[in-house]
Amino acid sequence: MSSLKNKKLPPPSGIITLLTDFGAADGYVAAMKGVILGIHRAAQIVDLTHEIAPQNIAAGAFLLSAQFKYFPPGTVHVAVVDPGVGTARKAIACYWEEHYFVAPENGLLDFCAEEGSCLAVHLTQREYWRAEVSNTFHGRDIFAPVAAHLAGGVPFGNLGMPIQLTPRLRASKCRVTSDTLMGEIIHCDRFGNLITNISNTEFENFVGKSSFAIQLKQICITAITPSYGYAAPGELVALFNSFDRLELGLVQGDARTSLAVAPGTSIIIKRGS
Amino acid sequence: MSSLKNKKLPPPSGIITLLTDFGAADGYVAAMKGVILGIHRAAQIVDLTHEIAPQNIAAGAFLLSAQFKYFPPGTVHVAVVDPGVGTARKAIACYWEEHYFVAPENGLLDFCAEEGSCLAVHLTQREYWRAEVSNTFHGRDIFAPVAAHLAGGVPFGNLGMPIQLTPRLRASKCRVTSDTLMGEIIHCDRFGNLITNISNTEFENFVGKSSFAIQLKQICITAITPSYGYAAPGELVALFNSFDRLELGLVQGDARTSLAVAPGTSIIIKRGS
Amino acid sequence: MSSLKNKKLPPPSGIITLLTDFGAADGYVAAMKGVILGIHRAAQIVDLTHEIAPQNIAAGAFLLSAQFKYFPPGTVHVAVVDPGVGTARKAIACYWEEHYFVAPENGLLDFCAEEGSCLAVHLTQREYWRAEVSNTFHGRDIFAPVAAHLAGGVPFGNLGMPIQLTPRLRASKCRVTSDTLMGEIIHCDRFGNLITNISNTEFENFVGKSSFAIQLKQICITAITPSYGYAAPGELVALFNSFDRLELGLVQGDARTSLAVAPGTSIIIKRGS
Repeated sequence: MSSLKNKKLPPPSGIITLLTDFGAADGYVAAMKGVILGIHRAAQIVDLTHEIAPQNIAAGAFLLSAQFKYFPPGTVHVAVVDPGVGTARKAIACYWEEHYFVAPENGLLDFCAEEGSCLAVHLTQREYWRAEVSNTFHGRDIFAPVAAHLAGGVPFGNLGMPIQLTPRLRASKCRVTSDTLMGEIIHCDRFGNLITNISNTEFENFVGKSSFAIQLKQICITAITPSYGYAAPGELVALFNSFDRLELGLVQGDARTSLAVAPGTSIIIKRGS
Repeated sequence: MSSLKNKKLPPPSGIITLLTDFGAADGYVAAMKGVILGIHRAAQIVDLTHEIAPQNIAAGAFLLSAQFKYFPPGTVHVAVVDPGVGTARKAIACYWEEHYFVAPENGLLDFCAEEGSCLAVHLTQREYWRAEVSNTFHGRDIFAPVAAHLAGGVPFGNLGMPIQLTPRLRASKCRVTSDTLMGEIIHCDRFGNLITNISNTEFENFVGKSSFAIQLKQICITAITPSYGYAAPGELVALFNSFDRLELGLVQGDARTSLAVAPGTSIIIKRGS
Repeated sequence: MSSLKNKKLPPPSGIITLLTDFGAADGYVAAMKGVILGIHRAAQIVDLTHEIAPQNIAAGAFLLSAQFKYFPPGTVHVAVVDPGVGTARKAIACYWEEHYFVAPENGLLDFCAEEGSCLAVHLTQREYWRAEVSNTFHGRDIFAPVAAHLAGGVPFGNLGMPIQLTPRLRASKCRVTSDTLMGEIIHCDRFGNLITNISNTEFENFVGKSSFAIQLKQICITAITPSYGYAAPGELVALFNSFDRLELGLVQGDARTSLAVAPGTSIIIKRGS
């Protein structure tokens, strides 16, 4: 622990992002913001999203891992999708790729553990929590105040005991065989576009200079389009999206509804000659 | 009035929360924020919720009373659920429990009047309003600018004439008879959890050390669960939620839909031996 | 260009508003905010709306033109409804009526071009963009960083080459004949109220002191109501709304659903004696 306390980490940016499955209707997110501002009045709070489907940890992890990097180094990201709240599951904080993360240890931060360079602490220091901690709302009573203290300058190592972060969820990595690259849809966005777990790099390493076929159910796409504006309305296209994932979408339409697919649906890429 | 003007109230925190039934789609909330920032550029504005069902004053009052206390003292809370906008209903501001509130006098602030220590003014001083006041949007033209001036340091007593705040809505208090505690569902949250008007204290005063049965329609629950994580998915549990109200919920499910209940549905608690 | 560079424009207010069709669920808006705060840490960001129907440029233009004016002069308004992203459509910035606007040149900013006094530049200076520009998300990679630089003090004229802004969309102006004023519904808000393209001034110039009939489908309204609170629940009324447009609504009800109308439905006003 002393080594963690002495480790030189970047200063906080003062920005705190919030990702939850709380929705906007009930004021739960506002309560978290009230607690944060009571501790660190100058914090700048940004909603990452609160529309994660209730208890869908994997969806929360995906969106957090996709969007956090557009914030300045030293930003504190709070993620609360927490079906195990009030049980023995740990509350943790991580430092990874110049950002701080605060969340329950239930898989939300698995992406930080995929490489070796992640620091993690088990949040044990109650002086950084609300005085009263409920059984059902650690977002307000533990994660928000810890984030506020961290954004306000409390050293990361002071928040608790160092732990080794171990992945909790099945990794949704794509798989390569001799002649196929097998992936899946991991998120459907507001436009009904289908975001896969296949990165630009994985695709190019597999396909090289060959021809290829992207198969989704009975449909087959054999070209990559630069952007939606290049194809005619109603056309189904494949492209690499703004965070470098293979994405399939219906131009000015909704591929999710039209094709009746969902997160988990398989995508198979075959290599030609 | 002079006594109110001389009364020592806490300085503003600079934070303004907004609760409305405007939704997020139409830009009405943004117009309020534009007006606030034009008056008090350093205000920190937090959305409490804008998803109150249109014209549902009781729902707005419940969420405001449940969530305001997590903000620092001196915060200004603006609430606009205002079916009577443009008619003779008063615009008011209250000071209660170290917080400021700005709203139409239609029951939204009834909770401030339940104890004797609330100060209230009828907003009559037009120098704190927008120069042009529409008939249909006092949120933008009266409540937002008054809140901005208050958050920026204008003394509460300068905003208008002192009045006595009198409750406007039927109070949704639970009732105790010799052998039952009768309450009701007052809010269903995003998770479909059923929040009642029965507080932890009211429940314990009634039940004491006896056994008990919580009845909702044909269903009967005879234990309190510490949190949702302690029960199996699909189980219906009762617990005290993060603001100390009795809450019924289906673990990892949606009790509202499954049980076909709604705000107003009765909850009856019977005491055993 | 040199004349534009030397032109004295108002200093930025430091406020940036965002209007998109991205919704709140996917974190796209958060990514834009992260980019903005990385460039201009003190920016105050306000969501105008993110609920524009996907690719509905006209709806975005209407809401932006209705709401921008409630912000302080020098505010930067970013609008991204961008079906042509990644194609040859220009990215532009405008200065109009003491406000700055940043958007694709696809009709979103037509309202700035309706009078002669608008300044516009084609965004060509890549030093104000993100280093990497994707094909599918110019909101994050071009519009957000340009807005941040503009709000932070970069002169408007430095952002690119001066151009003449030309309207791209069919103007939804109302038309006057000898005995009718023909307009249409241009927006239905959360309450189901029907907002038309007929301004208070246009109505009064046409009607004068005559009697009148407002026709919508089979329905006819012959009076203007001061505000919704003046009529009985369930009554269909016409009034001038908070931004001075003729609006039809069902008191404490939803006119859109009840009358089965939509943006584009005709409104005809006839003059009596």
